[in-house]
Amino acid sequence: MPLTRFAELSAPAVAALPPDTVALLPVGSLEQHGPHLPVATDHLIAVAVAERAARLATAVDAGAGAGAGACDVTLLPPLTYTKSNEHAWSPGTLWLSATTLLAVLDDLGRSLAASGIRRLALLNAHGGNTALLGVALRELRVHHGLLTFLLPVSLPAPKDSGELGTGIHAGLTETSAMLHLHPELVDMSLARRHVPEHLAAYEHVGFGRPVAFGWTSDDLSPTGVVGDPTGATADLGRVLVADAAARTAAALRECARFRFDTHERPTGRG
Amino acid sequence: MPLTRFAELSAPAVAALPPDTVALLPVGSLEQHGPHLPVATDHLIAVAVAERAARLATAVDAGAGAGAGACDVTLLPPLTYTKSNEHAWSPGTLWLSATTLLAVLDDLGRSLAASGIRRLALLNAHGGNTALLGVALRELRVHHGLLTFLLPVSLPAPKDSGELGTGIHAGLTETSAMLHLHPELVDMSLARRHVPEHLAAYEHVGFGRPVAFGWTSDDLSPTGVVGDPTGATADLGRVLVADAAARTAAALRECARFRFDTHERPTGRG
Amino acid sequence: MPLTRFAELSAPAVAALPPDTVALLPVGSLEQHGPHLPVATDHLIAVAVAERAARLATAVDAGAGAGAGACDVTLLPPLTYTKSNEHAWSPGTLWLSATTLLAVLDDLGRSLAASGIRRLALLNAHGGNTALLGVALRELRVHHGLLTFLLPVSLPAPKDSGELGTGIHAGLTETSAMLHLHPELVDMSLARRHVPEHLAAYEHVGFGRPVAFGWTSDDLSPTGVVGDPTGATADLGRVLVADAAARTAAALRECARFRFDTHERPTGRG
Amino acid sequence: MPLTRFAELSAPAVAALPPDTVALLPVGSLEQHGPHLPVATDHLIAVAVAERAARLATAVDAGAGAGAGACDVTLLPPLTYTKSNEHAWSPGTLWLSATTLLAVLDDLGRSLAASGIRRLALLNAHGGNTALLGVALRELRVHHGLLTFLLPVSLPAPKDSGELGTGIHAGLTETSAMLHLHPELVDMSLARRHVPEHLAAYEHVGFGRPVAFGWTSDDLSPTGVVGDPTGATADLGRVLVADAAARTAAALRECARFRFDTHERPTGRG
Amino acid sequence: MPLTRFAELSAPAVAALPPDTVALLPVGSLEQHGPHLPVATDHLIAVAVAERAARLATAVDAGAGAGAGACDVTLLPPLTYTKSNEHAWSPGTLWLSATTLLAVLDDLGRSLAASGIRRLALLNAHGGNTALLGVALRELRVHHGLLTFLLPVSLPAPKDSGELGTGIHAGLTETSAMLHLHPELVDMSLARRHVPEHLAAYEHVGFGRPVAFGWTSDDLSPTGVVGDPTGATADLGRVLVADAAARTAAALRECARFRFDTHERPTGRG
Amino acid sequence: MPLTRFAELSAPAVAALPPDTVALLPVGSLEQHGPHLPVATDHLIAVAVAERAARLATAVDAGAGAGAGACDVTLLPPLTYTKSNEHAWSPGTLWLSATTLLAVLDDLGRSLAASGIRRLALLNAHGGNTALLGVALRELRVHHGLLTFLLPVSLPAPKDSGELGTGIHAGLTETSAMLHLHPELVDMSLARRHVPEHLAAYEHVGFGRPVAFGWTSDDLSPTGVVGDPTGATADLGRVLVADAAARTAAALRECARFRFDTHERPTGRG
Repeated sequence: MPLTRFAELSAPAVAALPPDTVALLPVGSLEQHGPHLPVATDHLIAVAVAERAARLATAVDAGAGAGAGACDVTLLPPLTYTKSNEHAWSPGTLWLSATTLLAVLDDLGRSLAASGIRRLALLNAHGGNTALLGVALRELRVHHGLLTFLLPVSLPAPKDSGELGTGIHAGLTETSAMLHLHPELVDMSLARRHVPEHLAAYEHVGFGRPVAFGWTSDDLSPTGVVGDPTGATADLGRVLVADAAARTAAALRECARFRFDTHERPTGRG
Repeated sequence: MPLTRFAELSAPAVAALPPDTVALLPVGSLEQHGPHLPVATDHLIAVAVAERAARLATAVDAGAGAGAGACDVTLLPPLTYTKSNEHAWSPGTLWLSATTLLAVLDDLGRSLAASGIRRLALLNAHGGNTALLGVALRELRVHHGLLTFLLPVSLPAPKDSGELGTGIHAGLTETSAMLHLHPELVDMSLARRHVPEHLAAYEHVGFGRPVAFGWTSDDLSPTGVVGDPTGATADLGRVLVADAAARTAAALRECARFRFDTHERPTGRG
Repeated sequence: MPLTRFAELSAPAVAALPPDTVALLPVGSLEQHGPHLPVATDHLIAVAVAERAARLATAVDAGAGAGAGACDVTLLPPLTYTKSNEHAWSPGTLWLSATTLLAVLDDLGRSLAASGIRRLALLNAHGGNTALLGVALRELRVHHGLLTFLLPVSLPAPKDSGELGTGIHAGLTETSAMLHLHPELVDMSLARRHVPEHLAAYEHVGFGRPVAFGWTSDDLSPTGVVGDPTGATADLGRVLVADAAARTAAALRECARFRFDTHERPTGRG
Repeated sequence: MPLTRFAELSAPAVAALPPDTVALLPVGSLEQHGPHLPVATDHLIAVAVAERAARLATAVDAGAGAGAGACDVTLLPPLTYTKSNEHAWSPGTLWLSATTLLAVLDDLGRSLAASGIRRLALLNAHGGNTALLGVALRELRVHHGLLTFLLPVSLPAPKDSGELGTGIHAGLTETSAMLHLHPELVDMSLARRHVPEHLAAYEHVGFGRPVAFGWTSDDLSPTGVVGDPTGATADLGRVLVADAAARTAAALRECARFRFDTHERPTGRG
Repeated sequence: MPLTRFAELSAPAVAALPPDTVALLPVGSLEQHGPHLPVATDHLIAVAVAERAARLATAVDAGAGAGAGACDVTLLPPLTYTKSNEHAWSPGTLWLSATTLLAVLDDLGRSLAASGIRRLALLNAHGGNTALLGVALRELRVHHGLLTFLLPVSLPAPKDSGELGTGIHAGLTETSAMLHLHPELVDMSLARRHVPEHLAAYEHVGFGRPVAFGWTSDDLSPTGVVGDPTGATADLGRVLVADAAARTAAALRECARFRFDTHERPTGRG
Repeated sequence: MPLTRFAELSAPAVAALPPDTVALLPVGSLEQHGPHLPVATDHLIAVAVAERAARLATAVDAGAGAGAGACDVTLLPPLTYTKSNEHAWSPGTLWLSATTLLAVLDDLGRSLAASGIRRLALLNAHGGNTALLGVALRELRVHHGLLTFLLPVSLPAPKDSGELGTGIHAGLTETSAMLHLHPELVDMSLARRHVPEHLAAYEHVGFGRPVAFGWTSDDLSPTGVVGDPTGATADLGRVLVADAAARTAAALRECARFRFDTHERPTGRG
């Protein structure tokens, strides 16, 4: 029974989880995703990829080698309310401040460590959380001794998407994923392209460039969409989600066997 | 379409919610519930009662009077991680500190008000949250202008339950509710009675008595169970959940039409 | 010498207090109480009831049984500035925020535990503090190992008071108590009735009803009075205060002998 | 009626206080004062000096000149629990952390300003509060626009006291003041001298020297006493308290008429 | 005078800075850098690159095009104490917690905006700060309206460095940079290689791989060195620093002309 | 090698510092200093005095006695950004809030103690920091066990300066010190006198008087200058800086040998 759902376990069952079990926390958001997508888009994608990846990671592969073998995963209830202040201007965005979310993560880390969990993997589908989760990785390691990992849900856009590398929110790939996962929640009749083309003129500053910059979505778009959802298809979504799940599953197996070297720890005062 | 799920709405759909819509936030917990129940027991009960109550509250009743008519409810994603430090001694308990949870609620209140929500109903199935949610009621009203309500999920024990009024955790009623809602998550073979009978000797201090007291569940029980789950049945659970849902639905309708009197506001300096 | 005043003790005398001594902290408020009562009304009532109750609880009763015997009480200086943001609109209201007051209580709990105090009883005369003190009960138990109790100063209105169960602030009973305790501070010529009668139309939401709600006093009243002080008398006040003191004294004796059962503490990891 | 007690005023009476009224907040402490003095020593001295000074400051002097005339003072309830972590090692010391006390003062400042108070005088009898109250002076001016003043209760030791300038705690002057104010709370049979004579060897570092230093009272004394109470007399106490009250009264009158110059305020951007 | 040093300006001169001036904040650290490098290594590199880049960015280029022209830069005093808790085990590491550093950055952002600064570039030479500075980018934009940029000081290792992509701390490039900038502070006789070679066995988790992980330097090394400083040379350092300065200068010019598109801002409620 | 620069030491060299080494932290500010001085005036003075004093304190004196002998000093990088909200109205003032700066100091104290440092001397040149540093003295002693000292950089004005004792900011002495230290940063053509002469009329309230008061610099001056810089000379500056350095050096030697008496520590519970 290598795949468990933490919420469904009894307390003694939690205590009895194998020591290298990876606790997997899906992290999405509730925030505006333009007029054509639900506010829970990132949340729903995170949950879907987590489910699929956890099943893959824990399945016994026929003929798989030792290192690639199935691992133990316990799926935590998702963190639904996270950090989305770049969309705070819009109705539908429910968000926690940086200090609140950091406190939530620290409290969870303390509780998980007290529950005997050693490995925590954060599976994040919302770019606005990335930096703060990056901070938490170290804090949870230092404060609570956890081995911590940050796995991005990446849905890479095809090269010819016409989004100029700025399809970061409610664009082609997120819309496609939602057409695959929850078509009833997508209204393609409202999907409109908004690509901040002027950003392409910069060489150093920009998404995927060396210099990160502070922005809110109303800096970039009159509608909240940053990208081009008009060409989205369920087929593309299927491929993107499957690929993300497969990469995540492989990463989870590595998280389960990741170890630091066994050198002697340095001491402080000489 | 009076019942909506907030997470599934687009941002413009959130903005278009009727002004008296009640945003309903289910609040449970993840905490030890003895060896026979899952840690998400309160969470699952909160979500189930919220679902049922929201459907009832928003359904048009044949022949219902004006005041009792259907109201608009938007169901928020549940608050999964809450305050359970009375069970912090046990694996499986994942909890937020008082200040963290207060910050989470304040952040949500601010976001909901910015989304145009005016009425927020907290439906709470975990006693350990009650006092803190009571604090939040006023803070959210003062800070963000929301009309706020705290609805308890009450599952009253039958008079002859043998729990002496102390069946507060993983006892007869919670176990019955879970046998009704999620029988596959209950292991009755592990259900054991633990009633802190000595508490019955007190007249002033105790559950339901005038003097509240500070406790942790290991103060009260060697197993984490405070009550007697051994007589639990799915039938009792069905009745309890249905009654809780009906009471909650009626309360939600009142929350939707609740108004303060229209007196002139007093002014500060004379 | 079972009744001591903490402030008047020397440090060694504090250290020498009997181990089951109850430290009694009167908690009132400084907040508007309409035009006819002083802002310290709750403070003065809390202090008066605490004084009387402490004397009663520590007095040796002729012929009293073992369980009902006198206990040791040390009376702490009252907490004068507390949480009254429901009256923040009015001059005369001096209040601490929720997080400040929680920090104050935590600091006091830490200091008392470091002083060898094991039992702390909060005697609260201000409804606006109740939820937050309820949170503190558990925090002080968990953080500092104290046995904690919350005793309300209840001044129940006669059935026929005409206040419809909403006489919660500066109404019949508080005004009567002040006429008894501090008649020179009451100006009955300014006493006016304001009962939020429309609240009586609700079935679920309201004072003493299952659904609590967030309010400020200017939501409820154009004057800050919520109730009917016009019929107040010193005689009623005398009875109310005496009854409150007697109930508090009996409760204090129970607080002094309250014990958790001596089961084996559960352990975390199995 | 220039002297009022804030706690005894009704809300409209607070609103009607003259605009230059000085709100006077006595600030003491609850902390070990050796075996011969009560823990409330600083509190009792602060309250006593505040009472006397407020009466003097508000009394109409026969033949007094304009500038020295009586002023309006409203006496606030004392701040009982303050910052005493230099005595945290001892039972009987009840203290707030620096951040808690700063938050308390900020909350009070906000409330007082909202009540129409313009002038706040802190009368402090506990050296351990001085630096933090000094911080608060500016914060309350900047945050809430108050005119703020910090008045020390100084009880200067006679030159020949034999305390070598280190009689800072429970020594000659505090003990004398208590023999005058509350002789029933002093046990001179337990009074013992402890003067940290080695401190006299330093030229730069020390009490009253240019270089302040961090200390706790157990750094300085095996008993908690820092000074020599053995020669204390009620007569000396009477003189010290009368002098402190007179100086404080004169200072209060100045606080009531203190004004900043009426130059044009500088603007930010040129 | 396009290059100014903020600290050396008078207040009116700050107010008179051109509106597109980039305020450049060098961010390093004080933390153990093995036995052969000073604790200020990151600080010294950040300051050196900032100096050189600021001079280059503000210099008028002969024959340069419009877009590439010199910009205005004001050099802020460096942020010396930052976040290094991955090295907290070692003497010499002086660090701020995540919440403290976030508060420092927020305070600076508020002050800079109040000084009329519109553009803030953080030049960071310490990897342990990157995630937190990434959080700050958005917070400063949202809270204070600043245009914010995060420029990494990157010193890329040659392909054949033998560090297997893990030369992240006190290795070849940092040591070379210090041999160039401050040779008197480097003791090559103590330089020893420590490469955590086992990390190379992972495919998903690791430096520069998709899955980030939480670590402290004593997880990775018995000496605090993570990389191979033994082959470091001043010549390599000269090239690395010059390249970093040139890239930073070009980026600064872009920061000075970076603009968001001029679309109509979306509004909240529909 | 008794004088070291902390930033230039390797981690093992920090660990090997002699146990009585005084860590010297220069504390200045970045804040408006009128139109004629740079915003870093206090910072530059603090750094200059610290440098000179550290050299003097660590120099071996010919024929000096035992007690007055050279001590070990390690010079910390200065704290550049501190608390200047009295100048927040002006461009050029970059400041931390009280709680932020207290957190910074606490973090530094913890790190220094973990590095084996026992003695910390704060050399402060900005009056706006004094009270908060006074608070920190005790907090760092209690939290981290450090011996802490606060050394003021005092530049006393000549008796006949015409500043009436209010030359507290950008006046005669600070301007003279800057003319000596950094004449290229002073523009005497913009130096104007502003002395708040009305303050001289008060007897109790004022700079150097018993009653401290809350103020901002725009309360006192239309230009930000409080004093009279017009007569400043480099010669006076030379004398003031040399005197300050000499006094600081002598104080540092005392800080290095300061010890608490070796009495038995008192215990808590009797």
